Amino acid sequence: MAGKKIYKTPSAYDYPLILKHLLHTPERFARDQEIVYGEVKRLTYAEFFERLGRLANALKHIGARPGSVIGVMDWDSHRYLECFFAIPMMGAILHTVNVRLAPEQIAYTINHAEDEILFVHRDFVPLIKAIRSRLKTVRTFVFLSDDPDTSVPGEFTGEYEGMLETSPSEYDFPDFDENTQATMFYTTATTGLPKGVYFSHRQLVLHTLAVAAGSNGMKPGGKGLAADDVYMPITPMFHVHAWGLPYVATMLGIKQVYPGRYEPEKLLKLIEKEGVTFSHCVPTILHMLLNHPLSRKINLSKWRVNVGGAPLSEALCREALDRGIDVYSGYGMSETCPVLTLALLRPDMVSWDKDLQVEVRTKTGIPIPLVDLRIADPEGRFLPHDGKSVGEIVVRSPWLTQGYFKDKEKSEELWSGGWLHTGDVGYIDRRGYLKITDRIKDVIKSGGEWISSLELENIILKHEAVDEAAAVGIPDEKWGERPVVLVVLKQEYVGKVSEDELIAFYRNLAHKGTIPKWAMPDRILFVNSLPKTSVGKLDKKLIRKQVLSTNAAKE
Amino acid sequence: MAGKKIYKTPSAYDYPLILKHLLHTPERFARDQEIVYGEVKRLTYAEFFERLGRLANALKHIGARPGSVIGVMDWDSHRYLECFFAIPMMGAILHTVNVRLAPEQIAYTINHAEDEILFVHRDFVPLIKAIRSRLKTVRTFVFLSDDPDTSVPGEFTGEYEGMLETSPSEYDFPDFDENTQATMFYTTATTGLPKGVYFSHRQLVLHTLAVAAGSNGMKPGGKGLAADDVYMPITPMFHVHAWGLPYVATMLGIKQVYPGRYEPEKLLKLIEKEGVTFSHCVPTILHMLLNHPLSRKINLSKWRVNVGGAPLSEALCREALDRGIDVYSGYGMSETCPVLTLALLRPDMVSWDKDLQVEVRTKTGIPIPLVDLRIADPEGRFLPHDGKSVGEIVVRSPWLTQGYFKDKEKSEELWSGGWLHTGDVGYIDRRGYLKITDRIKDVIKSGGEWISSLELENIILKHEAVDEAAAVGIPDEKWGERPVVLVVLKQEYVGKVSEDELIAFYRNLAHKGTIPKWAMPDRILFVNSLPKTSVGKLDKKLIRKQVLSTNAAKE
Repeated sequence: MAGKKIYKTPSAYDYPLILKHLLHTPERFARDQEIVYGEVKRLTYAEFFERLGRLANALKHIGARPGSVIGVMDWDSHRYLECFFAIPMMGAILHTVNVRLAPEQIAYTINHAEDEILFVHRDFVPLIKAIRSRLKTVRTFVFLSDDPDTSVPGEFTGEYEGMLETSPSEYDFPDFDENTQATMFYTTATTGLPKGVYFSHRQLVLHTLAVAAGSNGMKPGGKGLAADDVYMPITPMFHVHAWGLPYVATMLGIKQVYPGRYEPEKLLKLIEKEGVTFSHCVPTILHMLLNHPLSRKINLSKWRVNVGGAPLSEALCREALDRGIDVYSGYGMSETCPVLTLALLRPDMVSWDKDLQVEVRTKTGIPIPLVDLRIADPEGRFLPHDGKSVGEIVVRSPWLTQGYFKDKEKSEELWSGGWLHTGDVGYIDRRGYLKITDRIKDVIKSGGEWISSLELENIILKHEAVDEAAAVGIPDEKWGERPVVLVVLKQEYVGKVSEDELIAFYRNLAHKGTIPKWAMPDRILFVNSLPKTSVGKLDKKLIRKQVLSTNAAKE
Repeated sequence: MAGKKIYKTPSAYDYPLILKHLLHTPERFARDQEIVYGEVKRLTYAEFFERLGRLANALKHIGARPGSVIGVMDWDSHRYLECFFAIPMMGAILHTVNVRLAPEQIAYTINHAEDEILFVHRDFVPLIKAIRSRLKTVRTFVFLSDDPDTSVPGEFTGEYEGMLETSPSEYDFPDFDENTQATMFYTTATTGLPKGVYFSHRQLVLHTLAVAAGSNGMKPGGKGLAADDVYMPITPMFHVHAWGLPYVATMLGIKQVYPGRYEPEKLLKLIEKEGVTFSHCVPTILHMLLNHPLSRKINLSKWRVNVGGAPLSEALCREALDRGIDVYSGYGMSETCPVLTLALLRPDMVSWDKDLQVEVRTKTGIPIPLVDLRIADPEGRFLPHDGKSVGEIVVRSPWLTQGYFKDKEKSEELWSGGWLHTGDVGYIDRRGYLKITDRIKDVIKSGGEWISSLELENIILKHEAVDEAAAVGIPDEKWGERPVVLVVLKQEYVGKVSEDELIAFYRNLAHKGTIPKWAMPDRILFVNSLPKTSVGKLDKKLIRKQVLSTNAAKE
C-alpha cells in the first residue's frame, strides 16, 4: 500500500461506475438517432430512453426487485438492448440465456442462475413447454413476439409490448455500489455442465470505455466505431453481451441495427438497406456471407468487420480485403467480458502490401487499454516476447469474471496464482502482437517442449489430398507425449496417398526449418471422419481416446 | 442500495485503476514510436519506459516515498511527461507548480502543498533564489536543464539527466488503492489565495479513457486523437495535466511533441517539421499562430485543434476553418480534471455549410462519456433544455476534485447539494449542446431574471465606435439589480458618440426580439479604461465598486 488515500467515505464526489451513466452522452447527442430491429421496428434513441423507464416499471409491477435474476430468450432485437440496460439499471441481474445449449442444459442454467422472471420469444415457447416441469425458480413468464396480434399463451403473465404500453415512462433509476452484479450467462460447455460467468456494473462500464477508446484510438485513421457509423452485431446478444459492442454503440449514440435470427440473405439485405459499416462475427458466418450470391451485388467496401471466436484464416482475411472490407481479428472469451486484444495495424503497417497486412490482421492482436496480458510457462514464469517462446496466455484487467458461478473449485483453478488462465497458448512477437497457437489441453508436450496441434493440422491441410485433420498427443515413455495426426482424405484421394508421403510433407518443412524436427508427427492415421462437439469443434478428447484404443487393439 | 455486491474482499480479480495500467497497450504497440522535445531531444517509447524506472529509482534514492509531494517547475518537455507517470506510479504525488503565479503565490503553493522535493528548470532558478528563504517544506532541489554542460547551482542536490543516467531502469511499480492521490495543482486565483485541487489515480485513468472514447467515438469520421496522429500540447503541462491529453496520447502510443516554452515561431516550425496533427490551446494563442507571417507558409490543413479556456469566437473559428483546420471548442476547468464537454458535430451536421457549423463548433458542447452535466436554478431545480432557460452549470462525473486542498469551507461551497458548482451559467439547446453565457458572479439578476453580462458586452462591441465594454449589475430597490454598461470608445470616436445613441443600439435589438426589453442597460458610462486582473480578464468586482462610488458621489 502506498500514498495517501483521498477518498475516506462515500460522498458527493463519489460517482459509481454504473450502467445508467453511459447514457448521458447519447441523451444529449443522439435523441433522433435510430435503433432498427430488422424489418419489424424502428425507434429513436429518445423512444428507447422512454422504453427503458417503461420496461423497469413493468418489471417492478410483476415483482422484479434489486437482485432479482431475469432471464431472456430472444434473438438479437431492440428488446434485448432494452434488457441490456433497464434490468441492471434497476439493480436486477440480466441472465442472457444461451439458447444454443441442449434443452436439458438450458433448464439447468435457468435453475442454476435462479431466474425469477423469464422473457421468452415465441420461437422458444415449444422448448419452454418441454422443460417447464423442470424449472424450479421461475415464477413469471413474459411473452415476446414481433407480431402484436399474436395471442399470448396461457401460461404467460403478459406480452412485452403490451406491458410497456401500459407502464409509465418515468423511472428513477437508483444509484448503487458499482460492484453490484449486472449480468450473467453460461459458457457453451464442450464437456460437463455449462459454467456460469458474471459481471458487475463497474466491469461493464470499464469494458465499454476501453473498447471504445481502443477500437478507434489504436487504429490509424481512427475509424473503429464512431458517431456516423451504423452498427449491426452478427454474434448473438446472449453470448458475452454481443462482445460488449451494444454498450459501446449506445454510449456513443451510434445507429444500431439488430437483425433478429441470423439468416445470410437477411443480414446482407440489412447491411445494404441500413448502410451497416461495422459488425463483428465468427469466421464461419463471414465466409457464408461472402460466398452468398447476394453479396456480389452489394458494395461491402464500407463494411468493417472484427472477427473472433475462432481463428481468422489468411484465406478468408484476403478474400474479405479483396472485397474492400476492413477486416481484423479480436480475442476474448466468455470469462473476459470479452475483449482483450484487437489485431489493428500499427501506423507504419498501413502502407504494407496486402500479404504482410494479412499476417498482422489474422494475429490475435494487441491488448486494448488496461489489459495486462502475458504468456507464462507451466511454473508461472513470464516468457519473453521473441515470437518463439510459447506459453499459456494469462491475463489481468478490470473486467474479468470473478469466477464460475457457485463453483469454488473451478473458480480457483481459473484464477490460479492471481491471473486468469485463458487455457490458450501462444507467443508474442517482437512487435508485441499475440498469436494463439493452440488450446492448452490440446497442446502436445514432448520432451519438455510444446508442439502446437493447430500448427500440425494447418500444415497438412495444405496438402492437396487432405480434407480434415486432427493432431493429438499420445503417451510416450521417453518423451512424455508424441504427436499423431489423424487425416480424412478427400474422396478422390482415398487409397491413393500413403502415410509415408504425408510424413515426407512434414519432413520437407522440417528441413526448411519451418518446424523443428522433434515436432514432426510419429504417425499419420487415415480415418473416415473426425468426431466433433455440439458446436462443431474437433472433439480432441474423444479423438485421443479413439487413437489410444486403436493402438491398444493393435499391440 | 440495490442488488447483489459481487466483490466482497479485494482479491485476484480486483484490478485497481492506477496509472501504470495505462502503459500496457503502448508497451506492446509503440516501442519504436517517438517522443520529441523541441529541437533538444528525441526518444522512443521504449526509452521512455526505461526512463520511468530510472526516474523512480533516482527519486527513491533522494528520499521520495509513497505520499511524498514532488513539485515540478518546467516548460512542456519529455521530462514533464516522465513526471506525469513515474511520480504517481511510485505512490508519490505530483504537484505541477503553476509558474504563472506571482512569486509570493508560488511560494505559498509550494508550502501549502507541502512539497518535499522540487524540480526546477534553470529558467526558474532566479525565482527560486528569491523565494528560497520562505520555502518551509522543500528539503531537496533538483536542477533541470536542456544543456548537459550547464554547471549545477550549489544549492541543488543533482541534475535530472545525470540522476537518471546513474539510476537503474528496473523499478517494480507497486499496486495500491486506486483512490490514492496522484496529482495536485493550484488554480490561478483572481482574488485571494490560489486554491489547490487534487486528483486520484482512479480519476486520471477514467478521465483518460473517457476523453479517448469521446474524442474519437463522438466524432463523425472518428478521427479525434488516434494511432497515426502527432500530438503537441499548446496549453501548459502545469495546468490541469495539459487537459489530460498527454495521458491519452501515451495510452494510445501516439507520437508526442513537447515544445518547451511557447513561442509562436517555434510552435509553427514544430507543427511543420514533426507533422503535428492535434493540439489544444486557448483562443489567444490560436489567433497569434494564425496571424504570424510564418503560418501562411505552412500547410495547416491536417491540424485539428481543440480550443478551451475562454470562448472561441465565431470570427476565429471561421478563420481557422478557412485555413483547413478542424477546430472545435471544449469545456472544463481546473476543478474538473478538466474535460467535461466537446463541441463535436453530429453526423447530420457534417454536410452543413460553414456558418451553421461555426455556430456548433463555438458552443460549449456535448458531455463526454460518464459526465452528468445539468443547468440548475438558484434553488437547485434542474432546468429544461430549450435553448432559453439559463442556469448555473452543475456537474457530476468520476473525475472531479473532491474539494479545495485544506479548505473545508470552500470545498463545501463547491459541492453544495452534492453537485460540483462550476460558477458558469448557460443554457442547453434542443439539440443538447451547452452554451455558456456568463460567470455566475457576473450575471445581472433583475426582477427574478438573469441577464448575461457577456451578451450585453458582445452586443455593444459590434458598434463601430466601441473598443472595450463591461456590463455589471448595480443594486436597484425595485428590481434587485439593473444593468449598466461601461464603454471605452475608440480614440477617433471620443466625444462623438452619445449615451443615447448606444442605448438606441440596444433598443433596436430589443425591438427585433434579439434581447428582451428588460435586459436593456439603464445607463452607458464612458470611461478611459477598464480595470483587469493579473491574467487579463475584466475585473468586474472592481468595476462594480467604481460604478457604485461614482453613483454615490453623484447623488
